[in-house]
Amino acid sequence: MHYVARINSFMDAQHTTTSEAIRRIGAAGIADCVDINYPEHFECDSEEAIRNALTANHLKLHAMNMRFKHPFLRGVYTNPSERLRNEAVEMTQKAAEICKRLGGRLVIIWLSFDGYDYSFQMDYEASWQLLVDAFRAVCTDETLQYAIEYKPYEERGYALLDTFGTTCSLIRDTGLKNLGVVIDFCHMLMKKENPAFAASYLLSKGLLYGVHLNDGEGWTDNGLMVGMSNPWKTLELLYYLKRAGYDATIYFDTFPIREDAEKEFAANRSMFERMWKLLDEKAMAAIQEAMKAQDAMMVNRVFQSVLSGGS
Amino acid sequence: MHYVARINSFMDAQHTTTSEAIRRIGAAGIADCVDINYPEHFECDSEEAIRNALTANHLKLHAMNMRFKHPFLRGVYTNPSERLRNEAVEMTQKAAEICKRLGGRLVIIWLSFDGYDYSFQMDYEASWQLLVDAFRAVCTDETLQYAIEYKPYEERGYALLDTFGTTCSLIRDTGLKNLGVVIDFCHMLMKKENPAFAASYLLSKGLLYGVHLNDGEGWTDNGLMVGMSNPWKTLELLYYLKRAGYDATIYFDTFPIREDAEKEFAANRSMFERMWKLLDEKAMAAIQEAMKAQDAMMVNRVFQSVLSGGS
Amino acid sequence: MHYVARINSFMDAQHTTTSEAIRRIGAAGIADCVDINYPEHFECDSEEAIRNALTANHLKLHAMNMRFKHPFLRGVYTNPSERLRNEAVEMTQKAAEICKRLGGRLVIIWLSFDGYDYSFQMDYEASWQLLVDAFRAVCTDETLQYAIEYKPYEERGYALLDTFGTTCSLIRDTGLKNLGVVIDFCHMLMKKENPAFAASYLLSKGLLYGVHLNDGEGWTDNGLMVGMSNPWKTLELLYYLKRAGYDATIYFDTFPIREDAEKEFAANRSMFERMWKLLDEKAMAAIQEAMKAQDAMMVNRVFQSVLSGGS
Amino acid sequence: MHYVARINSFMDAQHTTTSEAIRRIGAAGIADCVDINYPEHFECDSEEAIRNALTANHLKLHAMNMRFKHPFLRGVYTNPSERLRNEAVEMTQKAAEICKRLGGRLVIIWLSFDGYDYSFQMDYEASWQLLVDAFRAVCTDETLQYAIEYKPYEERGYALLDTFGTTCSLIRDTGLKNLGVVIDFCHMLMKKENPAFAASYLLSKGLLYGVHLNDGEGWTDNGLMVGMSNPWKTLELLYYLKRAGYDATIYFDTFPIREDAEKEFAANRSMFERMWKLLDEKAMAAIQEAMKAQDAMMVNRVFQSVLSGGS
Repeated sequence: MHYVARINSFMDAQHTTTSEAIRRIGAAGIADCVDINYPEHFECDSEEAIRNALTANHLKLHAMNMRFKHPFLRGVYTNPSERLRNEAVEMTQKAAEICKRLGGRLVIIWLSFDGYDYSFQMDYEASWQLLVDAFRAVCTDETLQYAIEYKPYEERGYALLDTFGTTCSLIRDTGLKNLGVVIDFCHMLMKKENPAFAASYLLSKGLLYGVHLNDGEGWTDNGLMVGMSNPWKTLELLYYLKRAGYDATIYFDTFPIREDAEKEFAANRSMFERMWKLLDEKAMAAIQEAMKAQDAMMVNRVFQSVLSGGS
Repeated sequence: MHYVARINSFMDAQHTTTSEAIRRIGAAGIADCVDINYPEHFECDSEEAIRNALTANHLKLHAMNMRFKHPFLRGVYTNPSERLRNEAVEMTQKAAEICKRLGGRLVIIWLSFDGYDYSFQMDYEASWQLLVDAFRAVCTDETLQYAIEYKPYEERGYALLDTFGTTCSLIRDTGLKNLGVVIDFCHMLMKKENPAFAASYLLSKGLLYGVHLNDGEGWTDNGLMVGMSNPWKTLELLYYLKRAGYDATIYFDTFPIREDAEKEFAANRSMFERMWKLLDEKAMAAIQEAMKAQDAMMVNRVFQSVLSGGS
Repeated sequence: MHYVARINSFMDAQHTTTSEAIRRIGAAGIADCVDINYPEHFECDSEEAIRNALTANHLKLHAMNMRFKHPFLRGVYTNPSERLRNEAVEMTQKAAEICKRLGGRLVIIWLSFDGYDYSFQMDYEASWQLLVDAFRAVCTDETLQYAIEYKPYEERGYALLDTFGTTCSLIRDTGLKNLGVVIDFCHMLMKKENPAFAASYLLSKGLLYGVHLNDGEGWTDNGLMVGMSNPWKTLELLYYLKRAGYDATIYFDTFPIREDAEKEFAANRSMFERMWKLLDEKAMAAIQEAMKAQDAMMVNRVFQSVLSGGS
Repeated sequence: MHYVARINSFMDAQHTTTSEAIRRIGAAGIADCVDINYPEHFECDSEEAIRNALTANHLKLHAMNMRFKHPFLRGVYTNPSERLRNEAVEMTQKAAEICKRLGGRLVIIWLSFDGYDYSFQMDYEASWQLLVDAFRAVCTDETLQYAIEYKPYEERGYALLDTFGTTCSLIRDTGLKNLGVVIDFCHMLMKKENPAFAASYLLSKGLLYGVHLNDGEGWTDNGLMVGMSNPWKTLELLYYLKRAGYDATIYFDTFPIREDAEKEFAANRSMFERMWKLLDEKAMAAIQEAMKAQDAMMVNRVFQSVLSGGS
């Protein structure tokens, strides 16, 4: 498994540059790659400086994350202004080019402001068509993968792409073959989506391009450390990843606001590896058996065993 | 617009037969059609008796609603027992035949127990395939329409078909042309789905086979009277129906536990018609303009105008 | 710790009598006491028959649970009819007398229908006063304890007594010294209440008269087995019980609809005891230290240790 | 009724000073008073400059709102550091003095960071005692009113003071006579609290010191314009205010991120006044009658009448 570090965890407090955050991540020796936000992380550093920092610290670029901010307050691909819609598409295309030049193969698109706050504020049918058109205009480089990271709400009261089902409906409507999904554990809990269920479907369709792991209390994007609120749901997600032979990357999308970033990353990785290891051959077989019988008592034995360290 | 009455509203308290409930609905002169639950409503009355009651009371059968009960406690189309899975498919086929014989053209399928209560209780990938297979086995009569009525949870802690997006994903996976969706306002609110958004998508794909109208407080299936909790969301749903020229049926899926069934039906119908009328040409134009500009201030003017009776 | 069995878990499927359910519980040898619902469990059996069954099976009556049903559809202590309000109070008084005669010391009152479904359906100030008056009329036997089991909604869309804070406000308004609270883990999750927080407050005021343990997914009253969804929140609740020297009873309020009642009870008890044991001196000290520093990293170490069986 | 403007609505976009925001509010002639955040709004302007701006624009200071920011990331009155806890109390005392000097009589305290993100992160009993002690230390000026503005979560995953019931429990534990509550409509919806119910209780106890009006979709602090999502719940809240003769102030706590602040304020005020007016003698009597009978059909007639402009 490859572990991806979140630049902002190593940046926010100290107001460091992107290169400095990369240096901190490299020095900690805890991750294989980083994701970089576009254009956010290029505001304080040049492409060249970031490339050098990656090389010097033996880190790879995993993905470019689109971060549409202030000018897109009223919408990204569905902005009422045609000029801003075009600008959003062009920004994504430019990010894809930089991503490729820096050795990345994945562009992750979170459509922060594509949604609405009020009933009657948006023509859903027209807006949906704008989304279809925009993704077709964006996903033109067949050597790259593009992924939608959906989130049910926030920044807006309602997002258009809010669940795995809505997102899959959009992907099918575009007919694109290099557009998939990055799931975020916390986002899924916000609307009571079961992460393992969504992952199972996306894996079966070859649409799971990445996993943002964290934990949450539902309703809001808590960004808690892995396994700290919903260990069983986390374990179930890992089961489906393991079963499907998922060998892409795990990105810890957690917010160490009150914690030391290096230690917090290490705790996430350690919890993840502990859980991955709990899913040994014996556990996988016991789970498979419980699922076949749809028997809650068998699940109970698995959980009680885990709370004894797998013995 | 055709209005469909809910048999159980006219039945529960008095433990009447199906025919007697039909008689009450006919006598009240408030609905054009009824939906009948299978097998529930045939337990106390024969097909013949129900046919006679419909004819005598000038009511048509609109749809047959599947009600899978006790023997399917552990699952309907995804029951761990192959025998029970087959039985569920056969029951649906039999309901479709009776539906046709009684003059109905729609079979509504709510998969009450197809879900899970615990993590690891169900193999999602295998269960999804069972759903695909079952619907292919069920939807064989091309002269009929079959519709999924999704509900995010209850009877089980999580349902497999929980949102319009998941349901559309299933429908596409089946490849069927006569399988669509019946939306239920209250079910949609349970997981913070915006009914108008879902309706807009389903209408644009020709997949909206029916509307169950009611109101709710979210989280649970309240079955409140129309417009009593979320008038703006109701009005927005009606806007999309009106704009799309939806002329099928409105079924009031409300639970008059403490109210007189006839008066409660009349109140639902009256509220619906009042709102439908509020959406006159002027209002439709004002809404269209607000949507185009995505301007909340314009929406505010529409709502303030409505609170003055459209003046 | 004393374990209390739920009669209905041993009753529903087979339509047994109360005495037969008590016999099953006795034969399983898993519980010390039972709670009995009034008037529900006296509908198929006399007080005498129940007393004999308890004695013969070496089980004690722990508490009498009020179950207000059909005639109170429009309200219990806040019913619009004065006659029914008085009847509800008298029923509670009668239940208290029977409770005492059968050796119980606790009357648990869940006000199922005291709430509302619609805005403007209830005069909250007047209804609150009715609650205050009713509890003052009910809690007259100073040798007994009376406890409110709150639930945020269901049967009604909104309950008047929905959280520990509202319930404590009511208790203080009554000025009663023998009126406390029974918490139900699942009910608390329905409105995102943290069980340990509520328990901590109630324990500090001497108001925690009982604990209904189970687990849930929030939003609805799932009645899942202990520890199967929220093990950390369960462990935290147990921590506060242990710290406060709580030595009353644990009632497993779970719904073994698809499970064997005996095995399900045993799984609840085993999970509870496992967790209670995980909270050994070392763990209690580590938790105390984490709390003092309010340090999430220390909590992480506790959880990772638990997932290794406390080693 | 007095209307209070929110400084930040007139400030955020242009990065104006506090005085300039006050000037904009004055020029618009829409509000009688303003609330000022401490220390936030004194960071770019002196007390003197603010006093002059108020005088010049014929605006009064209604309340001082505490805004505890970065240094209190780990807690305000319950911070693990005794030094920071003391600092928070002293800041509140200082804000109270300035409030008084500027002619205000109310200090509103929102304890942004007093809560927790993880199970076991906080000792609830000890933290509660810290809250009690802090409020006793703070509310020493008997000529002033102090009010808690509770919010169920955000900034932290869980707040200690999350509902009206919890907040009332705290107030009673302090024994203070000048400590009350300011309710925020949106905050209440976040955990499915019914604003009118909470207001009714607080009014009956003389504890409702202020109202922050807005609207929301639940779960998150949307800050929508008044009446745009839950008109019936808004109307019900207004009913209780009117009935109780509430004549304090209405503060519109809405976030005009995409709207013109002046127009947005006007829309809130116009909607409020429209609704206040809809509650004429006839409507008040009809509501009273519906409440007395607890009859949903009567409520339905009230709502249908409102949708016809009260005719």
